[in-house]
Amino acid sequence: MRDLGVCYYPEQWDKVLWKQDAERMAEAGLSWVRIGEFSWSRLEPEAGNLHWDWLDDAIECLGSAGLKIILGTPTATPPRWMLDKYPDMLAVDEQGNKRKFGSRRHYCFSHEGYRDESKRIADLMGRRYGTNPHIAAWQIDNEYGCHDTILSYSDAARKAFQIWLKQRYIHIEALNEAWGNVFWSMDYEEFGQIDLPNLTVTEPNPAHCLAFRRFSSDQVVSYNQAQAQILRRHSQAPLIHNYMGRITEFDHYAVGKDLDIASWDSYPIGFLSDRLEAEPEHKKRFLRQGDPDFQAFHHDLYRTVGKGRWWVMEQQPGPVNWAPYNPAPLPGMVRLWSWEAFAHGAQTVCYFRWRQAPFAQEQMHSGLLRPDGEAAQGLYEACQVAKELDDLQKKQSLAPIQAQKNKVALLFDYVSQWAWDIQPQGADFDYFRLTFEAYKALRQLGLSIDIVPPDADLSDYALILAPGLLTLDDVKHETIKGTSLYGPRSGLKTKDLSIALPLGPNLADLECKVVMSESLPSSADQELSVGGAITGWLEHLETDAPVHIATKEGHPIMVGKEGQYYLAGWPDEQGWQAILSELCQQAGLAVTAMPQGVRQCQNQGLRFLFNYNDHPVSFDGITLPAAGVHWQS
Amino acid sequence: MRDLGVCYYPEQWDKVLWKQDAERMAEAGLSWVRIGEFSWSRLEPEAGNLHWDWLDDAIECLGSAGLKIILGTPTATPPRWMLDKYPDMLAVDEQGNKRKFGSRRHYCFSHEGYRDESKRIADLMGRRYGTNPHIAAWQIDNEYGCHDTILSYSDAARKAFQIWLKQRYIHIEALNEAWGNVFWSMDYEEFGQIDLPNLTVTEPNPAHCLAFRRFSSDQVVSYNQAQAQILRRHSQAPLIHNYMGRITEFDHYAVGKDLDIASWDSYPIGFLSDRLEAEPEHKKRFLRQGDPDFQAFHHDLYRTVGKGRWWVMEQQPGPVNWAPYNPAPLPGMVRLWSWEAFAHGAQTVCYFRWRQAPFAQEQMHSGLLRPDGEAAQGLYEACQVAKELDDLQKKQSLAPIQAQKNKVALLFDYVSQWAWDIQPQGADFDYFRLTFEAYKALRQLGLSIDIVPPDADLSDYALILAPGLLTLDDVKHETIKGTSLYGPRSGLKTKDLSIALPLGPNLADLECKVVMSESLPSSADQELSVGGAITGWLEHLETDAPVHIATKEGHPIMVGKEGQYYLAGWPDEQGWQAILSELCQQAGLAVTAMPQGVRQCQNQGLRFLFNYNDHPVSFDGITLPAAGVHWQS
Amino acid sequence: MRDLGVCYYPEQWDKVLWKQDAERMAEAGLSWVRIGEFSWSRLEPEAGNLHWDWLDDAIECLGSAGLKIILGTPTATPPRWMLDKYPDMLAVDEQGNKRKFGSRRHYCFSHEGYRDESKRIADLMGRRYGTNPHIAAWQIDNEYGCHDTILSYSDAARKAFQIWLKQRYIHIEALNEAWGNVFWSMDYEEFGQIDLPNLTVTEPNPAHCLAFRRFSSDQVVSYNQAQAQILRRHSQAPLIHNYMGRITEFDHYAVGKDLDIASWDSYPIGFLSDRLEAEPEHKKRFLRQGDPDFQAFHHDLYRTVGKGRWWVMEQQPGPVNWAPYNPAPLPGMVRLWSWEAFAHGAQTVCYFRWRQAPFAQEQMHSGLLRPDGEAAQGLYEACQVAKELDDLQKKQSLAPIQAQKNKVALLFDYVSQWAWDIQPQGADFDYFRLTFEAYKALRQLGLSIDIVPPDADLSDYALILAPGLLTLDDVKHETIKGTSLYGPRSGLKTKDLSIALPLGPNLADLECKVVMSESLPSSADQELSVGGAITGWLEHLETDAPVHIATKEGHPIMVGKEGQYYLAGWPDEQGWQAILSELCQQAGLAVTAMPQGVRQCQNQGLRFLFNYNDHPVSFDGITLPAAGVHWQS
Repeated sequence: MRDLGVCYYPEQWDKVLWKQDAERMAEAGLSWVRIGEFSWSRLEPEAGNLHWDWLDDAIECLGSAGLKIILGTPTATPPRWMLDKYPDMLAVDEQGNKRKFGSRRHYCFSHEGYRDESKRIADLMGRRYGTNPHIAAWQIDNEYGCHDTILSYSDAARKAFQIWLKQRYIHIEALNEAWGNVFWSMDYEEFGQIDLPNLTVTEPNPAHCLAFRRFSSDQVVSYNQAQAQILRRHSQAPLIHNYMGRITEFDHYAVGKDLDIASWDSYPIGFLSDRLEAEPEHKKRFLRQGDPDFQAFHHDLYRTVGKGRWWVMEQQPGPVNWAPYNPAPLPGMVRLWSWEAFAHGAQTVCYFRWRQAPFAQEQMHSGLLRPDGEAAQGLYEACQVAKELDDLQKKQSLAPIQAQKNKVALLFDYVSQWAWDIQPQGADFDYFRLTFEAYKALRQLGLSIDIVPPDADLSDYALILAPGLLTLDDVKHETIKGTSLYGPRSGLKTKDLSIALPLGPNLADLECKVVMSESLPSSADQELSVGGAITGWLEHLETDAPVHIATKEGHPIMVGKEGQYYLAGWPDEQGWQAILSELCQQAGLAVTAMPQGVRQCQNQGLRFLFNYNDHPVSFDGITLPAAGVHWQS
Repeated sequence: MRDLGVCYYPEQWDKVLWKQDAERMAEAGLSWVRIGEFSWSRLEPEAGNLHWDWLDDAIECLGSAGLKIILGTPTATPPRWMLDKYPDMLAVDEQGNKRKFGSRRHYCFSHEGYRDESKRIADLMGRRYGTNPHIAAWQIDNEYGCHDTILSYSDAARKAFQIWLKQRYIHIEALNEAWGNVFWSMDYEEFGQIDLPNLTVTEPNPAHCLAFRRFSSDQVVSYNQAQAQILRRHSQAPLIHNYMGRITEFDHYAVGKDLDIASWDSYPIGFLSDRLEAEPEHKKRFLRQGDPDFQAFHHDLYRTVGKGRWWVMEQQPGPVNWAPYNPAPLPGMVRLWSWEAFAHGAQTVCYFRWRQAPFAQEQMHSGLLRPDGEAAQGLYEACQVAKELDDLQKKQSLAPIQAQKNKVALLFDYVSQWAWDIQPQGADFDYFRLTFEAYKALRQLGLSIDIVPPDADLSDYALILAPGLLTLDDVKHETIKGTSLYGPRSGLKTKDLSIALPLGPNLADLECKVVMSESLPSSADQELSVGGAITGWLEHLETDAPVHIATKEGHPIMVGKEGQYYLAGWPDEQGWQAILSELCQQAGLAVTAMPQGVRQCQNQGLRFLFNYNDHPVSFDGITLPAAGVHWQS
Repeated sequence: MRDLGVCYYPEQWDKVLWKQDAERMAEAGLSWVRIGEFSWSRLEPEAGNLHWDWLDDAIECLGSAGLKIILGTPTATPPRWMLDKYPDMLAVDEQGNKRKFGSRRHYCFSHEGYRDESKRIADLMGRRYGTNPHIAAWQIDNEYGCHDTILSYSDAARKAFQIWLKQRYIHIEALNEAWGNVFWSMDYEEFGQIDLPNLTVTEPNPAHCLAFRRFSSDQVVSYNQAQAQILRRHSQAPLIHNYMGRITEFDHYAVGKDLDIASWDSYPIGFLSDRLEAEPEHKKRFLRQGDPDFQAFHHDLYRTVGKGRWWVMEQQPGPVNWAPYNPAPLPGMVRLWSWEAFAHGAQTVCYFRWRQAPFAQEQMHSGLLRPDGEAAQGLYEACQVAKELDDLQKKQSLAPIQAQKNKVALLFDYVSQWAWDIQPQGADFDYFRLTFEAYKALRQLGLSIDIVPPDADLSDYALILAPGLLTLDDVKHETIKGTSLYGPRSGLKTKDLSIALPLGPNLADLECKVVMSESLPSSADQELSVGGAITGWLEHLETDAPVHIATKEGHPIMVGKEGQYYLAGWPDEQGWQAILSELCQQAGLAVTAMPQGVRQCQNQGLRFLFNYNDHPVSFDGITLPAAGVHWQS
């Protein structure tokens, strides 16, 4: 069963509006309402003085209208009095400045006092509402990592980091050895000497940085886990966190293990403007529609993070306030985005937010309603989706996508992101971009993809792509039956970010060493003989494996045999098409050259088509209007 | 009577030069000399030890040569010993760093100790020179706001801000309500918890920011007022401050209320290079002349700030030292700039400075004399202006411009600048630029303009433009008899920077709501059917008023009736011409399409023409040489 | 005798590798090995506990293989325990942040405690190895100034600066007068009031800044001198420091006076990408070769710094890790770079480093060996150079270049760099770039050049260029017999960075004053009548000297007579060619128009030709392959 919901803030509105709002939500076909996640100052206006009444009433009012409630723990917004208790709870930025009260996410994950407060409020909420029949799910905190809040250079973080290091390396000599601290006399005599890797004279040891990144991610995991454990004591309802787009500073797979459902906040137009490298022409073309693959990438990623159960917790309903430019969606796009989520297996899509707030930071962020309570464009489209969902589900059940694995796997690894952030070697090297371009290339061939962690069981996949992996140590090669492609820059390092010896990638069946890597400006692209080019990153191989693709100058780019291949450079869009066409043929995968801006997704017998263009497109006998969605058996 | 003057620093020169300098000034036709404003360390070399002798002598020497003296209080440059007394008097930047001694303006407006010192030195100077016959005017401090000195994040500022907030909101609940602090649990329990809005995790509450901006402006007003009140006790001479160009961090109208004359420091070439957004082609064209409208805008603005009495206190005489590039003015431009000021009603134009200092920060800033005392180009042109002024005033008196109001009013509001600085919503949105482009469009049509505050009496104006006003609450609609145009983005918010409800602009006679605003990159310009385009900002209206101008796609842009119009987007240059042509016709204003780089100004029967081009232009039967000025009855 | 060497880190490798490494070095034809300069934490793992054994063994092992050893003092990398002893020894950046432990160069030159520690370790090493027969040279510290480490805003620096000022100015009144502190009331009452010139409200007094720059340079000189004096007590071996490319924050001539040999670290590809202003087309053309003049400039500079004895201590052998992009050298370039050094008189060229380290900051920096110990491209080319050197020296001795002075002198002055850094007046003005462009223009005419300090004996030179000198006070005009060209911006200021009076340049035989200077954007280039243009900087002269070159508009650019000329602007490439052609003719110097990317160097009867292009070039009857080197008698 797929359904819709909305985010709502009863504490922000006069109580007289609640009932009417609840009824309008239900009428619109919404089933879920998320509340509470920023309400701490109203739940506990002064330390220890709890005000449950309003929340009791709100839950009753919404629940009575037939809505299922997702109740959020409010730990992303500690009240002002918390700082009187813990003046040192604030995170510290890389420059050493305290990140002050006055917005949100003003806490350091390593601060024990604040952890205790978070557990306390979760416990109080769990006790009060854990068995409330209207509470159908819980959200813990909100958008971990938003506003660059994973890395903190506070005293609390430093002390916790030292303990973490001691647990990982046991002896300081082991750490010195693993990090290569002999280089530049960086040896430590004891763990208590190790500072956080900011404000050093020149770049700190990459091993030091990677340890700090692993530690910082682990802090998020344990912070989240602590609330999860408490809520489970009081409630059977599923636990959710709402992740964000292209936040890579913590390991989402690891956080996801402690939760029941993954959800994410999908703002296609804001992301296009703010979080995507793309040519100006591309950004102009999709200005009011968002990138055709960015949402799908996250849908496919969070499906895995949620072990098959995933939602969109916040769906953009109109212009937002936080991107450099904030245009309105092309009419029809709110519907399209919703359907793209369902096509990828989403259980629920919630819109953010019900009524636009006329005050504070997000006053220019639209809602389904205007600030004056009139319906905005988003509401009309949400109603349409609700109706269409209803019609479709009458005809056919849409099982969760996890029941049906796709045939293509793309490995995505947070640690690799951190490693290449720390040591890009070339100014443009970015792991997410590399992976996303591979994903986009697959989508341009009409394929449906699973995004999986490096240690996934790969036995069901006909084609496996593993670009840019720090190490291949965790890859379950023994499960692989399909065609696999590694590289560029896969398996060349150790987990402590040293160069692997013997030189990588050290694939069992492929004699191949990367003996030198070059980073190149875009002016030095290397053309491929099959069309397209290598751009930005080029490796030199020592191999006796057959060369399948080379540059026009004869530099080997794709080598391998028997279904195992290595890619020695970063292909451009055309290069990816040439490479993937060859691989798909080998893997026995049928491909479809999708028209520009049109995408498809297969889901249990249904084929969905999406037109991200602002003009109609005819394809495969179907004419898709601008922002059009089409599904067929 | 219009006249000329110069800025002079007797303390910087050997006393033997004073007499000769004074005589040369008088010979050159200069009537005024400004002195003293940076001389504190020589007036009071150690705390409490006053050295008046040299200043007594300098005043006597200059006065004896027939020069009228403007005496400056030296509070922009506290001596080094002041810091021993008040180590916490320094302003603090947004990053939390103290802004140290070693240049100028090193004080926080909120520091009580420094305020007392400022009053003390003003009192001492007032007592000594208040009735000196040579002291014909006073300047208080120097260039408030220069070097980004209005906003300070010091402890003194924080404490003063809390007091200010308490005075404004009385109860903390009222503040929480007005700011919408329920959003993100930002509620306060008491005023003492409220910090300054810097270094927050993500953007602070815009209401918090706007309050801080209002407070910071008020601190300047009260700081200036304190000195003004003291000087008035001792002297009948008029009080002046010298404002700068495009400094918008404090409310100049409010400061101006406590003074008798407004003056400003006009550096056309430096401003073009450093303070003006413009196409490279425009900057190249006017490299040695300055923008044709930038000075005029400030002349028209400061005429209002000075309630009709205004000066140029510092006129650029040659290359300066502080812009990215510092070319020499085209020969004739120093004369042109001087005359443009007089055409706009200036009483006095003073050149900065007499002799170029060979030392310290401004050694590469030219003067009327070279560092070796020889005449520089500026002196020749100043002499010519003196002579021309004399000739003209023999024929005709030039009454102050305030006697004759112009027919066009442009509303300019400092609070709106702060509001949109805080919440631009689109990366390019800038209030000054919006207003300045409207002004430039009016000038291109040959119109003479008054720039007035939002609460001005508008009864004399045939055409009133009010773009970008935060609120319309203070606009005296009842005084309006002419044609008025509001928007874009006018009247959509409250004074606490929330969205106005009902949705704005809430014009009495115009049914029109802005229901959605879009910010757009320049690649998404919307062409108008009348020519030109909307660029960067586009509003969606709910209105039944007639649509006068729309985009080619039919999106309403200018709507209204009976002389009251709303503009739902930011027009480009051609768009403004189309809009204004239509409005002027309605308003019964004759317009003249001015040739590129040529401007005119009407003043009491005289029509002045200015050629900002570096080549001659023939216009209206007159041939203006490069940098040419022409006047006729 | 010219020879080769390599940098080696025995402490980074298992002891079993040492012998084999030493033998391979010797086999490759390398004579020298540099060790020890980053090994402090292994020499003294805890304070006072010295571990000499491993170093004893390493020296014995390398020496036994016939290698001469350069032993480095490890003071660029103080161990972690040093900070427990001296928490305040860290440098402080301009923003006031401590520059923390975790990389290298984490010390403030002004910290007395750390100076003592540096002397202590130098003394200990000198005592132990001063007479060891394998120790054939010493390196003190490593790359002074790398990572922006000359300027420190620490308390230690402030206190030392005050003492330095007192020694220089004796009386505070003298300092106030020299700096022009009367301007903006910046007068001091005592030296203890003078802070470092960072974090001021607007720019600090340029005289204050220049004093701080002179002081900071002096601190490097005295720091280095202290170690030099100690090592001389224990050893007869020559003392060396390895300077970097385009580091100008300290006076290398002054440091060089205390040492026996100058050396520098030459990374042509990294420098092209990271430290050279050039058109994208130029950077693309020489992407894998480096700029054709950048290395030569430093060779000619450091030859003077070393009083004729100079080395390349670190020669790039393959891709590096630290530039924005890190391509591999074109095959042959390692050889070419080595020969260019010898052609300019280098005694020894050492490659950095022997084996690529698989760990820590520089793991992506290639060596002569790959991380797995196999030979990399660099090793093959080093072997070839060794063989060629051997062959050539069998035929002919290559005496040190200082025996034969070149005929062209270019004056290069560190103080001028500081002065124009402080007061560029135009956004693009950079002293190094000005000087380097003059040097490049001379090389394009096939000339061999000496780069000398302003106070050099100039009697041997037929042509002397002195662009951009702060003052001409130290120039030994009396020694000049050849043709000399001063300017632009030469001799216009005093040593305290005030404008010189009478106005400069104050050349004895040339009546010429610069009465105004203009800085211009590139859009305002002034074309010369002889071809080319003046770009960025234009001076106005008062002179009765003959005008040799003028702009098309008649503005005098090169004036002078009887072999003494002044240049009143910054020429572009074509402009320099026109100017130099005329001067060389006067000076009786034959010139050769070199093809693009081809350079020559004369050295004691040998003429070397270098082809920096990636394609063959025929020139003067010789066909040079890509990356080709040619020499002939």
